[in-house]
Amino acid sequence: MALSLQDLGEQGLLKLLKPFCSDRVGDDGAVMGSLPMGYELVVTTDILIDGVHFSPQTTSPEDAGWRAAAANLSDLAAMGASPWGVTLALGLPRDTELDWILGVYRGFTACLKKYGTELVGGDTVRSPIKTIAVTAFGQVPSDQIIYRHTAQVGDLIVITGEHGLSKAGLEILLHPDLAQDLSIPAIAKLHLAHQRPTPRLDALPLPYRVSGMDSSDGLGDAIAQICDASGVSAKLDLGKTVIAEEIQSVANRAGVQAIDWVMYGGEDFELVLCLEPNHAHQFLNKLPKSRVIGEIIPKNPDRNFNMARTFQHFCPN
Amino acid sequence: MALSLQDLGEQGLLKLLKPFCSDRVGDDGAVMGSLPMGYELVVTTDILIDGVHFSPQTTSPEDAGWRAAAANLSDLAAMGASPWGVTLALGLPRDTELDWILGVYRGFTACLKKYGTELVGGDTVRSPIKTIAVTAFGQVPSDQIIYRHTAQVGDLIVITGEHGLSKAGLEILLHPDLAQDLSIPAIAKLHLAHQRPTPRLDALPLPYRVSGMDSSDGLGDAIAQICDASGVSAKLDLGKTVIAEEIQSVANRAGVQAIDWVMYGGEDFELVLCLEPNHAHQFLNKLPKSRVIGEIIPKNPDRNFNMARTFQHFCPN
Repeated sequence: MALSLQDLGEQGLLKLLKPFCSDRVGDDGAVMGSLPMGYELVVTTDILIDGVHFSPQTTSPEDAGWRAAAANLSDLAAMGASPWGVTLALGLPRDTELDWILGVYRGFTACLKKYGTELVGGDTVRSPIKTIAVTAFGQVPSDQIIYRHTAQVGDLIVITGEHGLSKAGLEILLHPDLAQDLSIPAIAKLHLAHQRPTPRLDALPLPYRVSGMDSSDGLGDAIAQICDASGVSAKLDLGKTVIAEEIQSVANRAGVQAIDWVMYGGEDFELVLCLEPNHAHQFLNKLPKSRVIGEIIPKNPDRNFNMARTFQHFCPN
Repeated sequence: MALSLQDLGEQGLLKLLKPFCSDRVGDDGAVMGSLPMGYELVVTTDILIDGVHFSPQTTSPEDAGWRAAAANLSDLAAMGASPWGVTLALGLPRDTELDWILGVYRGFTACLKKYGTELVGGDTVRSPIKTIAVTAFGQVPSDQIIYRHTAQVGDLIVITGEHGLSKAGLEILLHPDLAQDLSIPAIAKLHLAHQRPTPRLDALPLPYRVSGMDSSDGLGDAIAQICDASGVSAKLDLGKTVIAEEIQSVANRAGVQAIDWVMYGGEDFELVLCLEPNHAHQFLNKLPKSRVIGEIIPKNPDRNFNMARTFQHFCPN
């Protein structure tokens, strides 16, 4: 029989988890050291619930851990900040299998390690439902903070990568028959997009005026939020190639509009950035899969953005 | 009928909670500014679950919020750190009454305000069980960090206040008949100790070598942890007055040893500090209710500490 939490007790669990933690763990709090001159602290937090944000059907414990870490590192990237440390608090039913707990820690710390940071604090408590609470903090040079409210008319809107992949990945995990027209590599690409998202820390540093956020709640939501905060509107020209082939195939089988997944699927964890045209072009050269999808225009009181040419005008609200 | 979460939706909830949050909230992360020269960042996190860490029987939503904040501020105090900011993530069942949510935020932010800090980030998600996840971060001068591993033989062991009050408070909340010998002020004192604990930030700064932690997991546990980490043992001489009159009365009625509540009741959120004798006496003058309860002695391989004179020798492990 698989070992579960109740076989181990709190002290046993702490011993088991210690190897995943930074040496900073062991006192009432973790001492992180000083901030470099001219840098500021950025903090972000998320809480994820079994059956709401992850499920055994679509996410292994390793994936659940990875995604929890990646979502918070993405929030740091969206602020222009490099990760400095992350905390992880778990609520666990008594009968939670140790393999699940270790899997979450493995996936979580694998993601942290990939992005050069570490687990510096935590808490594990009894709960009727598996719960993952994460707080990440990072460092950003004072003059490179990325806010939502600083977009200006004439800025180009740049995305760092494809959208809709995570949603399509989730759909084929839930309904494998939707993937029947896809090649094995295409299926793997969609699965990975959902299970192992990539925080776009590689887009940093951005040493010029930039407004933006991540697309964790959907590309459409990100553009609407930036427009709201900046008092502007956006004109989008996505072009046909914004819909990846794999997404089109799955959406066709599912009988839905692929563009809805691209715009509103969410959890792609790309960055949506507004940059002066010359900076935008510098950025495109730096990050190969990034692309321009529109521009910032004066505020249109009726709608946050409209999509030209390829798609019908519409208002996301 | 009372309004609940499902009447409001996520956007409505965010609007409702905005007044509780710092102006820093609104982007993917909160920008906290720089650390003063010579200061370091300290981070601590906790997760609390309905029915495990709080319950309607003993803690109002305001109390649950206050205690969640106080526990984390106490961890900062235990590291010698002043609070800089706190995040709050809630998991909420759909039928959670708005009054409960607002109560938690009121209690939480009241505690933060009292100690000069603020709510800088959060997350609210759907969950089958009410869940409160808190992360606090603070600032400490590099030469005033309080660790557990730096106690030295000859140090006096100082506590900042009474122990066992929170446990006695919990017991009379659960079993009101245990309070029948107590005056109204005594009952109020015990209730408050449990429902509105006080992080001992007033003990700071401690500008001399000091080892210590808070007594959130019990006075006995704190002493054992410090001894373990420092490779020393402790000789305790608690004296008869360490048991507050109110605790003795409740313990008598409950038919238990009051000293067990003092040593192992937990959640008193006092500080347990090891100081050179001259510094200990300076500290006692500064903080009126603090007292010496023993001293650090060379490591006794058989036990972490023993209690002299008033109580039997015993080993907490």
